[in-house]
Amino acid sequence: MDLVRYEYQGEIRHGIREGDNVAEIDGDFFGDLQRTGAIAALSDVKLKSPTMPSKILNIAGNYYSHLGDSPPFTRPQPFLAPPSSVIDPGADIVIPAGSVNVDYEGEIAVIIGKRARKVSVDDAPSHILGICPANDVSERDWQNGDDKDVQWWRAKGGDTFSPFGPWITTGLNYRDIGLKTLVNGEVVQETNTKDDMVHDIDTTLSFISQHMTLEPGDVIFSGTPQTTVALKPGDVVEVHVDGCGVLSNPVAAEE
Amino acid sequence: MDLVRYEYQGEIRHGIREGDNVAEIDGDFFGDLQRTGAIAALSDVKLKSPTMPSKILNIAGNYYSHLGDSPPFTRPQPFLAPPSSVIDPGADIVIPAGSVNVDYEGEIAVIIGKRARKVSVDDAPSHILGICPANDVSERDWQNGDDKDVQWWRAKGGDTFSPFGPWITTGLNYRDIGLKTLVNGEVVQETNTKDDMVHDIDTTLSFISQHMTLEPGDVIFSGTPQTTVALKPGDVVEVHVDGCGVLSNPVAAEE
Repeated sequence: MDLVRYEYQGEIRHGIREGDNVAEIDGDFFGDLQRTGAIAALSDVKLKSPTMPSKILNIAGNYYSHLGDSPPFTRPQPFLAPPSSVIDPGADIVIPAGSVNVDYEGEIAVIIGKRARKVSVDDAPSHILGICPANDVSERDWQNGDDKDVQWWRAKGGDTFSPFGPWITTGLNYRDIGLKTLVNGEVVQETNTKDDMVHDIDTTLSFISQHMTLEPGDVIFSGTPQTTVALKPGDVVEVHVDGCGVLSNPVAAEE
Repeated sequence: MDLVRYEYQGEIRHGIREGDNVAEIDGDFFGDLQRTGAIAALSDVKLKSPTMPSKILNIAGNYYSHLGDSPPFTRPQPFLAPPSSVIDPGADIVIPAGSVNVDYEGEIAVIIGKRARKVSVDDAPSHILGICPANDVSERDWQNGDDKDVQWWRAKGGDTFSPFGPWITTGLNYRDIGLKTLVNGEVVQETNTKDDMVHDIDTTLSFISQHMTLEPGDVIFSGTPQTTVALKPGDVVEVHVDGCGVLSNPVAAEE
Protein backbone atom coordinates (compact mmCIF):
# COMPACT_ATOMS: atom_id res chain seq x y z
CA MET A 1 0.00 0.00 0.00
CA ASP A 2 1.25 3.49 -0.88
CA LEU A 3 0.41 6.27 1.60
CA VAL A 4 0.40 9.71 0.00
CA ARG A 5 0.47 13.13 1.65
CA TYR A 6 -0.66 15.78 -0.82
CA GLU A 7 -2.13 19.19 -1.36
CA TYR A 8 -5.41 19.40 -3.24
CA GLN A 9 -7.75 22.37 -3.56
CA GLY A 10 -5.59 24.34 -1.13
CA GLU A 11 -5.60 21.78 1.69
CA ILE A 12 -3.05 19.23 2.89
CA ARG A 13 -4.62 15.75 2.78
CA HIS A 14 -3.63 12.14 3.36
CA GLY A 15 -4.62 9.28 1.10
CA ILE A 16 -3.95 5.86 -0.38
CA ARG A 17 -2.63 5.55 -3.93
CA GLU A 18 -4.79 3.55 -6.31
CA GLY A 19 -3.04 3.42 -9.67
CA ASP A 20 -3.06 6.96 -11.04
CA ASN A 21 -5.47 8.19 -8.36
CA VAL A 22 -5.35 8.89 -4.65
CA ALA A 23 -8.23 7.96 -2.32
CA GLU A 24 -8.46 10.43 0.55
CA ILE A 25 -8.52 9.16 4.16
CA ASP A 26 -9.72 10.78 7.39
CA GLY A 27 -6.93 12.24 9.50
CA ASP A 28 -3.33 11.12 9.04
CA PHE A 29 -1.48 7.81 8.57
CA PHE A 30 -1.46 6.95 12.29
CA GLY A 31 -5.13 6.10 12.65
CA ASP A 32 -7.31 3.48 10.95
CA LEU A 33 -6.92 4.82 7.37
CA GLN A 34 -10.68 5.28 6.93
CA ARG A 35 -11.51 6.49 3.39
CA THR A 36 -13.59 9.65 2.99
CA GLY A 37 -14.78 8.55 -0.46
CA ALA A 38 -13.06 11.48 -2.21
CA ILE A 39 -10.76 10.52 -5.10
CA ALA A 40 -8.32 12.77 -6.97
CA ALA A 41 -6.05 12.10 -9.94
CA LEU A 42 -2.38 12.03 -8.88
CA SER A 43 -1.71 14.39 -11.79
CA ASP A 44 -4.02 16.96 -10.18
CA VAL A 45 -2.41 16.96 -6.72
CA LYS A 46 0.83 18.40 -5.38
CA LEU A 47 2.84 15.75 -3.53
CA LYS A 48 4.08 16.79 -0.08
CA SER A 49 6.79 15.18 2.03
CA PRO A 50 5.13 11.96 3.32
CA THR A 51 5.25 13.24 6.92
CA MET A 52 6.39 16.38 8.75
CA PRO A 53 8.79 14.62 11.14
CA SER A 54 9.65 16.08 14.53
CA LYS A 55 13.18 14.80 13.84
CA ILE A 56 15.22 12.83 11.35
CA LEU A 57 17.91 10.38 12.45
CA ASN A 58 20.50 9.79 9.74
CA ILE A 59 22.87 6.85 10.10
CA ALA A 60 26.59 7.32 9.36
CA GLY A 61 28.73 4.63 7.71
CA ASN A 62 26.05 1.95 7.49
CA TYR A 63 26.97 0.17 4.22
CA TYR A 64 30.12 -1.92 3.86
CA SER A 65 30.51 -0.56 0.33
CA HIS A 66 30.60 3.03 1.69
CA LEU A 67 33.22 2.31 4.35
CA GLY A 68 36.05 1.28 2.04
CA ASP A 69 38.91 0.08 4.23
CA SER A 70 37.46 1.53 7.45
CA PRO A 71 36.21 -1.05 9.96
CA PRO A 72 32.42 -1.05 10.44
CA PHE A 73 31.08 0.73 13.53
CA THR A 74 30.25 -1.60 16.41
CA ARG A 75 26.88 0.17 16.92
CA PRO A 76 24.63 2.36 14.76
CA GLN A 77 25.98 5.94 14.54
CA PRO A 78 23.03 8.32 14.18
CA PHE A 79 23.05 12.08 13.71
CA LEU A 80 20.17 14.54 13.68
CA ALA A 81 18.56 16.61 10.92
CA PRO A 82 15.72 19.05 11.71
CA PRO A 83 12.23 19.41 10.20
CA SER A 84 13.38 22.60 8.46
CA SER A 85 15.66 20.54 6.20
CA VAL A 86 12.70 18.63 4.69
CA ILE A 87 11.48 19.45 1.16
CA ASP A 88 8.66 18.02 -0.93
CA PRO A 89 9.16 15.47 -3.71
CA GLY A 90 10.13 17.39 -6.84
CA ALA A 91 11.28 20.48 -4.94
CA ASP A 92 14.72 22.03 -5.48
CA ILE A 93 17.78 20.92 -3.54
CA VAL A 94 19.52 24.29 -3.11
CA ILE A 95 23.32 24.47 -3.15
CA PRO A 96 24.31 27.17 -0.63
CA ALA A 97 26.20 30.19 -1.96
CA GLY A 98 29.93 29.41 -2.00
CA SER A 99 29.49 25.64 -1.55
CA VAL A 100 31.24 23.46 -4.15
CA ASN A 101 31.02 20.02 -2.54
CA VAL A 102 27.34 19.24 -2.03
CA ASP A 103 26.85 15.51 -2.61
CA TYR A 104 23.79 13.28 -3.01
CA GLU A 105 23.41 10.30 -0.67
CA GLY A 106 20.71 7.90 -1.84
CA GLU A 107 19.14 6.14 1.14
CA ILE A 108 16.16 4.16 2.41
CA ALA A 109 13.94 6.22 4.73
CA VAL A 110 12.08 4.39 7.51
CA ILE A 111 8.90 6.08 8.71
CA ILE A 112 7.90 5.52 12.33
CA GLY A 113 4.26 4.51 12.74
CA LYS A 114 4.01 4.22 16.53
CA ARG A 115 5.83 5.90 19.40
CA ALA A 116 9.01 3.92 20.04
CA ARG A 117 10.72 4.05 23.42
CA LYS A 118 13.07 1.25 24.50
CA VAL A 119 11.78 -1.08 21.83
CA SER A 120 13.44 -4.48 21.31
CA VAL A 121 14.78 -5.56 17.92
CA ASP A 122 11.95 -8.07 17.66
CA ASP A 123 9.34 -5.38 18.33
CA ALA A 124 10.89 -2.84 15.93
CA PRO A 125 8.87 -3.89 12.84
CA SER A 126 5.57 -3.14 14.58
CA HIS A 127 6.75 0.47 15.06
CA ILE A 128 7.50 0.98 11.36
CA LEU A 129 4.78 2.35 9.09
CA GLY A 130 6.71 1.87 5.86
CA ILE A 131 9.68 3.02 3.79
CA CYS A 132 10.51 5.32 0.90
CA PRO A 133 13.55 6.69 -0.93
CA ALA A 134 15.51 9.54 0.68
CA ASN A 135 18.46 11.76 -0.09
CA ASP A 136 20.81 12.77 2.75
CA VAL A 137 22.25 15.82 0.93
CA SER A 138 25.70 16.57 2.38
CA GLU A 139 28.00 19.61 2.23
CA ARG A 140 31.37 17.85 2.47
CA ASP A 141 33.53 20.87 3.34
CA TRP A 142 31.42 21.69 6.39
CA GLN A 143 31.35 17.99 7.25
CA ASN A 144 34.97 16.98 6.68
CA GLY A 145 36.99 19.91 5.30
CA ASP A 146 40.08 21.55 6.81
CA ASP A 147 37.85 24.12 8.52
CA LYS A 148 35.02 21.68 9.21
CA ASP A 149 32.32 22.46 11.75
CA VAL A 150 32.42 20.89 15.21
CA GLN A 151 29.18 19.03 14.40
CA TRP A 152 27.25 18.30 11.17
CA TRP A 153 24.30 20.62 11.89
CA ARG A 154 24.39 22.46 8.52
CA ALA A 155 26.49 19.93 6.55
CA LYS A 156 23.57 17.49 6.82
CA GLY A 157 20.70 19.56 8.24
CA GLY A 158 20.72 22.76 6.19
CA ASP A 159 17.57 23.94 4.41
CA THR A 160 16.49 21.59 1.52
CA PHE A 161 18.99 18.86 2.55
CA SER A 162 16.47 16.15 3.59
CA PRO A 163 14.19 15.17 0.68
CA PHE A 164 12.21 11.97 1.16
CA GLY A 165 9.21 10.48 -0.62
CA PRO A 166 7.30 10.53 -2.93
CA TRP A 167 5.07 8.40 -0.67
CA ILE A 168 5.34 5.72 2.00
CA THR A 169 5.12 2.08 0.91
CA THR A 170 4.05 -0.48 3.50
CA GLY A 171 4.79 -4.19 3.73
CA LEU A 172 8.12 -4.34 1.86
CA ASN A 173 10.96 -6.63 2.99
CA TYR A 174 13.56 -4.00 3.80
CA ARG A 175 16.05 -6.68 4.89
CA ASP A 176 16.55 -7.62 1.23
CA ILE A 177 15.79 -4.71 -1.03
CA GLY A 178 17.51 -2.83 -3.85
CA LEU A 179 18.56 0.83 -3.60
CA LYS A 180 19.76 2.88 -6.57
CA THR A 181 20.64 6.54 -7.15
CA LEU A 182 20.67 8.25 -10.56
CA VAL A 183 22.05 11.66 -11.49
CA ASN A 184 20.75 12.95 -14.82
CA GLY A 185 19.61 9.43 -15.67
CA GLU A 186 22.97 7.77 -14.98
CA VAL A 187 23.24 5.19 -12.18
CA VAL A 188 25.74 6.44 -9.57
CA GLN A 189 24.93 4.17 -6.62
CA GLU A 190 23.41 0.68 -6.65
CA THR A 191 23.21 -1.95 -3.94
CA ASN A 192 21.00 -4.29 -1.95
CA THR A 193 20.54 -4.10 1.83
CA LYS A 194 20.88 -7.87 2.30
CA ASP A 195 24.64 -8.13 1.93
CA ASP A 196 25.71 -4.49 2.20
CA MET A 197 23.92 -2.92 5.20
CA VAL A 198 25.97 -3.02 8.42
CA HIS A 199 23.29 -2.51 11.12
CA ASP A 200 19.90 -3.57 9.84
CA ILE A 201 16.88 -1.29 10.17
CA ASP A 202 15.29 -3.11 13.10
CA THR A 203 18.55 -3.07 15.08
CA THR A 204 19.03 0.62 14.34
CA LEU A 205 15.48 1.58 15.37
CA SER A 206 15.80 -0.43 18.59
CA PHE A 207 19.15 1.18 19.43
CA ILE A 208 17.94 4.73 18.84
CA SER A 209 14.83 4.10 20.93
CA GLN A 210 16.96 3.17 23.98
CA HIS A 211 18.10 6.81 24.12
CA MET A 212 15.64 8.93 22.20
CA THR A 213 11.88 8.46 21.92
CA LEU A 214 10.77 8.18 18.29
CA GLU A 215 7.40 9.75 17.48
CA PRO A 216 4.92 8.77 14.74
CA GLY A 217 6.08 10.44 11.53
CA ASP A 218 9.73 10.60 12.61
CA VAL A 219 12.13 9.27 10.00
CA ILE A 220 15.34 7.24 9.99
CA PHE A 221 17.57 7.76 6.93
CA SER A 222 19.35 4.42 7.12
CA GLY A 223 22.68 5.22 5.43
CA THR A 224 24.18 5.46 1.95
CA PRO A 225 26.23 2.88 -0.01
CA GLN A 226 29.39 3.22 -2.11
CA THR A 227 30.71 6.66 -3.07
CA THR A 228 29.16 10.04 -3.77
CA VAL A 229 30.14 13.03 -5.90
CA ALA A 230 29.21 16.70 -5.99
CA LEU A 231 25.99 17.94 -7.54
CA LYS A 232 25.75 21.06 -9.68
CA PRO A 233 22.85 23.37 -10.49
CA GLY A 234 20.67 21.88 -13.22
CA ASP A 235 21.28 18.27 -12.17
CA VAL A 236 18.35 16.00 -11.37
CA VAL A 237 18.81 13.36 -8.63
CA GLU A 238 16.59 10.29 -8.45
CA VAL A 239 16.56 7.74 -5.65
CA HIS A 240 14.94 4.37 -6.36
CA VAL A 241 14.04 1.73 -3.78
CA ASP A 242 12.51 -1.49 -5.12
CA GLY A 243 8.72 -1.42 -4.82
CA CYS A 244 8.59 2.30 -3.89
CA GLY A 245 7.85 5.40 -5.91
CA VAL A 246 10.81 7.34 -7.31
CA LEU A 247 12.12 10.36 -5.39
CA SER A 248 13.24 12.99 -7.88
CA ASN A 249 14.63 16.43 -7.02
CA PRO A 250 16.27 19.01 -9.27
CA VAL A 251 19.33 20.89 -8.04
CA ALA A 252 19.46 24.71 -7.98
CA ALA A 253 21.98 27.35 -6.93
CA GLU A 254 21.12 29.64 -4.04
CA GLU A 255 19.81 32.95 -5.38
CA MET B 1 6.82 40.45 30.70
CA ASP B 2 6.83 36.73 31.58
CA LEU B 3 5.12 34.38 29.10
CA VAL B 4 3.96 31.15 30.71
CA ARG B 5 2.88 27.89 29.04
CA TYR B 6 0.95 25.78 31.50
CA GLU B 7 -1.58 23.05 32.04
CA TYR B 8 -4.74 23.94 33.90
CA GLN B 9 -7.93 21.92 34.21
CA GLY B 10 -6.53 19.35 31.79
CA GLU B 11 -5.69 21.76 28.98
CA ILE B 12 -2.43 23.32 27.77
CA ARG B 13 -2.77 27.12 27.89
CA HIS B 14 -0.63 30.20 27.31
CA GLY B 15 -0.62 33.23 29.57
CA ILE B 16 1.13 36.23 31.06
CA ARG B 17 2.47 36.07 34.61
CA GLU B 18 1.08 38.69 36.99
CA GLY B 19 2.76 38.21 40.36
CA ASP B 20 1.55 34.90 41.72
CA ASN B 21 -1.10 34.55 39.03
CA VAL B 22 -1.20 33.85 35.32
CA ALA B 23 -3.59 35.67 32.97
CA GLU B 24 -4.60 33.41 30.09
CA ILE B 25 -4.24 34.63 26.48
CA ASP B 26 -5.89 33.50 23.26
CA GLY B 27 -3.73 31.17 21.16
CA ASP B 28 0.03 31.04 21.62
CA PHE B 29 2.88 33.54 22.11
CA PHE B 30 3.22 34.34 18.40
CA GLY B 31 0.03 36.38 18.02
CA ASP B 32 -1.16 39.58 19.71
CA LEU B 33 -1.27 38.18 23.29
CA GLN B 34 -4.98 39.00 23.71
CA ARG B 35 -6.18 38.14 27.23
CA THR B 36 -9.18 35.86 27.62
CA GLY B 37 -9.96 37.29 31.06
CA ALA B 38 -9.32 33.97 32.83
CA ILE B 39 -6.85 34.11 35.74
CA ALA B 40 -5.31 31.19 37.62
CA ALA B 41 -2.97 31.05 40.61
CA LEU B 42 0.52 29.89 39.57
CA SER B 43 0.36 27.45 42.48
CA ASP B 44 -2.68 25.80 40.84
CA VAL B 45 -1.15 25.25 37.40
CA LYS B 46 1.44 22.81 36.07
CA LEU B 47 4.24 24.65 34.25
CA LYS B 48 5.07 23.26 30.79
CA SER B 49 8.18 23.86 28.70
CA PRO B 50 7.69 27.44 27.42
CA THR B 51 7.41 26.19 23.81
CA MET B 52 7.45 22.85 21.98
CA PRO B 53 10.31 23.71 19.62
CA SER B 54 10.65 22.05 16.22
CA LYS B 55 14.39 22.07 16.95
CA ILE B 56 16.98 23.26 19.46
CA LEU B 57 20.33 24.66 18.37
CA ASN B 58 22.95 24.35 21.09
CA ILE B 59 26.17 26.35 20.75
CA ALA B 60 29.52 24.66 21.53
CA GLY B 61 32.41 26.49 23.19
CA ASN B 62 30.78 29.91 23.37
CA TYR B 63 32.20 31.28 26.66
CA TYR B 64 35.87 32.21 27.04
CA SER B 65 35.76 30.80 30.57
CA HIS B 66 34.66 27.38 29.21
CA LEU B 67 37.40 27.19 26.57
CA GLY B 68 40.40 27.21 28.90
CA ASP B 69 43.51 27.40 26.73
CA SER B 70 41.67 26.51 23.51
CA PRO B 71 41.37 29.37 20.99
CA PRO B 72 37.81 30.62 20.48
CA PHE B 73 35.97 29.38 17.40
CA THR B 74 35.97 31.85 14.49
CA ARG B 75 32.22 31.29 13.96
CA PRO B 76 29.35 29.98 16.11
CA GLN B 77 29.42 26.17 16.34
CA PRO B 78 25.84 24.89 16.68
CA PHE B 79 24.62 21.36 17.15
CA LEU B 80 21.08 19.99 17.15
CA ALA B 81 18.85 18.58 19.88
CA PRO B 82 15.38 17.21 19.09
CA PRO B 83 11.95 18.04 20.57
CA SER B 84 11.96 14.65 22.31
CA SER B 85 14.77 15.85 24.60
CA VAL B 86 12.62 18.63 26.09
CA ILE B 87 11.18 18.26 29.60
CA ASP B 88 8.99 20.56 31.67
CA PRO B 89 10.29 22.80 34.47
CA GLY B 90 10.56 20.67 37.59
CA ALA B 91 10.60 17.37 35.70
CA ASP B 92 13.32 14.77 36.25
CA ILE B 93 16.60 14.79 34.35
CA VAL B 94 17.12 11.04 33.92
CA ILE B 95 20.63 9.60 33.98
CA PRO B 96 20.70 6.72 31.48
CA ALA B 97 21.47 3.23 32.81
CA GLY B 98 25.23 2.73 32.88
CA SER B 99 26.09 6.43 32.43
CA VAL B 100 28.44 7.91 35.04
CA ASN B 101 29.38 11.23 33.43
CA VAL B 102 26.18 13.19 32.90
CA ASP B 103 26.96 16.87 33.47
CA TYR B 104 24.81 20.00 33.85
CA GLU B 105 25.47 22.92 31.52
CA GLY B 106 23.69 26.09 32.68
CA GLU B 107 22.81 28.28 29.68
CA ILE B 108 20.67 31.12 28.39
CA ALA B 109 17.92 29.91 26.05
CA VAL B 110 16.80 32.26 23.27
CA ILE B 111 13.24 31.72 22.05
CA ILE B 112 12.50 32.57 18.41
CA GLY B 113 9.42 34.75 17.97
CA LYS B 114 9.29 35.11 14.20
CA ARG B 115 10.47 32.89 11.32
CA ALA B 116 14.15 33.71 10.73
CA ARG B 117 15.73 33.01 7.35
CA LYS B 118 18.88 34.87 6.29
CA VAL B 119 18.42 37.49 8.97
CA SER B 120 21.11 40.16 9.49
CA VAL B 121 22.72 40.72 12.89
CA ASP B 122 20.87 44.05 13.13
CA ASP B 123 17.53 42.35 12.44
CA ALA B 124 18.13 39.47 14.85
CA PRO B 125 16.55 41.13 17.92
CA SER B 126 13.19 41.52 16.15
CA HIS B 127 13.12 37.72 15.69
CA ILE B 128 13.63 37.01 19.39
CA LEU B 129 10.60 36.61 21.64
CA GLY B 130 12.57 36.44 24.89
CA ILE B 131 14.95 34.36 26.97
CA CYS B 132 14.96 31.92 29.86
CA PRO B 133 17.36 29.61 31.71
CA ALA B 134 18.27 26.27 30.12
CA ASN B 135 20.31 23.18 30.91
CA ASP B 136 22.20 21.44 28.09
CA VAL B 137 22.54 18.12 29.91
CA SER B 138 25.56 16.25 28.48
CA GLU B 139 26.71 12.62 28.64
CA ARG B 140 30.48 13.16 28.42
CA ASP B 141 31.51 9.58 27.57
CA TRP B 142 29.26 9.51 24.49
CA GLN B 143 30.44 13.03 23.64
CA ASN B 144 34.18 12.78 24.23
CA GLY B 145 35.11 9.35 25.63
CA ASP B 146 37.48 6.78 24.15
CA ASP B 147 34.55 5.08 22.42
CA LYS B 148 32.69 8.33 21.71
CA ASP B 149 29.90 8.48 19.15
CA VAL B 150 30.54 9.92 15.69
CA GLN B 151 28.10 12.77 16.48
CA TRP B 152 26.49 14.09 19.68
CA TRP B 153 22.94 12.90 18.94
CA ARG B 154 22.41 11.12 22.31
CA ALA B 155 25.21 12.82 24.31
CA LYS B 156 23.25 16.08 24.03
CA GLY B 157 19.88 15.09 22.58
CA GLY B 158 18.81 12.06 24.63
CA ASP B 159 15.45 11.99 26.39
CA THR B 160 15.21 14.57 29.26
CA PHE B 161 18.47 16.31 28.25
CA SER B 162 17.00 19.71 27.21
CA PRO B 163 15.15 21.39 30.10
CA PHE B 164 14.36 25.08 29.60
CA GLY B 165 12.00 27.49 31.38
CA PRO B 166 10.19 28.07 33.68
CA TRP B 167 8.81 30.83 31.40
CA ILE B 168 9.97 33.27 28.72
CA THR B 169 10.95 36.76 29.83
CA THR B 170 10.81 39.53 27.24
CA GLY B 171 12.75 42.80 27.01
CA LEU B 172 15.94 41.82 28.89
CA ASN B 173 19.36 43.03 27.79
CA TYR B 174 20.95 39.67 26.99
CA ARG B 175 24.21 41.38 25.94
CA ASP B 176 24.96 42.10 29.59
CA ILE B 177 23.25 39.61 31.85
CA GLY B 178 24.23 37.28 34.66
CA LEU B 179 24.01 33.48 34.43
CA LYS B 180 24.43 31.14 37.39
CA THR B 181 24.05 27.39 37.99
CA LEU B 182 23.50 25.78 41.39
CA VAL B 183 23.64 22.11 42.33
CA ASN B 184 21.97 21.32 45.65
CA GLY B 185 22.06 25.03 46.48
CA GLU B 186 25.79 25.48 45.83
CA VAL B 187 26.91 27.82 43.03
CA VAL B 188 28.87 25.79 40.43
CA GLN B 189 28.88 28.21 37.48
CA GLU B 190 28.61 32.00 37.51
CA THR B 191 29.32 34.53 34.79
CA ASN B 192 28.01 37.49 32.78
CA THR B 193 27.54 37.45 29.02
CA LYS B 194 29.12 40.90 28.55
CA ASP B 195 32.75 39.90 28.93
CA ASP B 196 32.55 36.11 28.68
CA MET B 197 30.36 35.22 25.66
CA VAL B 198 32.35 34.63 22.45
CA HIS B 199 29.68 35.03 19.75
CA ASP B 200 26.82 37.16 21.00
CA ILE B 201 23.23 36.01 20.65
CA ASP B 202 22.34 38.27 17.70
CA THR B 203 25.42 37.13 15.75
CA THR B 204 24.64 33.50 16.50
CA LEU B 205 20.98 33.77 15.44
CA SER B 206 21.97 35.55 12.23
CA PHE B 207 24.60 32.93 11.40
CA ILE B 208 22.27 29.97 11.98
CA SER B 209 19.56 31.59 9.87
CA GLN B 210 21.89 31.76 6.84
CA HIS B 211 21.77 27.96 6.70
CA MET B 212 18.74 26.77 8.61
CA THR B 213 15.35 28.46 8.86
CA LEU B 214 14.37 29.10 12.48
CA GLU B 215 10.65 28.75 13.26
CA PRO B 216 8.62 30.50 15.99
CA GLY B 217 9.16 28.56 19.21
CA ASP B 218 12.53 27.19 18.16
CA VAL B 219 15.23 27.65 20.78
CA ILE B 220 18.94 28.48 20.82
CA PHE B 221 20.84 27.26 23.89
CA SER B 222 23.64 29.81 23.71
CA GLY B 223 26.50 27.96 25.42
CA THR B 224 27.80 27.24 28.91
CA PRO B 225 30.58 28.98 30.89
CA GLN B 226 33.43 27.60 32.99
CA THR B 227 33.52 23.94 33.97
CA THR B 228 30.94 21.26 34.66
CA VAL B 229 30.85 18.13 36.80
CA ALA B 230 28.77 14.97 36.86
CA LEU B 231 25.30 14.88 38.40
CA LYS B 232 24.02 12.03 40.52
CA PRO B 233 20.52 10.79 41.32
CA GLY B 234 18.95 12.93 44.04
CA ASP B 235 20.72 16.14 42.99
CA VAL B 236 18.71 19.25 42.16
CA VAL B 237 20.06 21.58 39.44
CA GLU B 238 18.97 25.21 39.27
CA VAL B 239 19.81 27.63 36.46
CA HIS B 240 19.41 31.35 37.17
CA VAL B 241 19.45 34.13 34.57
CA ASP B 242 19.08 37.69 35.91
CA GLY B 243 15.49 38.86 35.59
CA CYS B 244 14.13 35.42 34.66
CA GLY B 245 12.38 32.73 36.66
CA VAL B 246 14.53 29.92 38.08
CA LEU B 247 14.75 26.64 36.17
CA SER B 248 14.92 23.78 38.66
CA ASN B 249 15.10 20.07 37.81
CA PRO B 250 15.78 17.09 40.07
CA VAL B 251 18.04 14.30 38.85
CA ALA B 252 16.89 10.67 38.79
CA ALA B 253 18.39 7.34 37.76
CA GLU B 254 16.83 5.46 34.87
CA GLU B 255 14.48 2.79 36.18
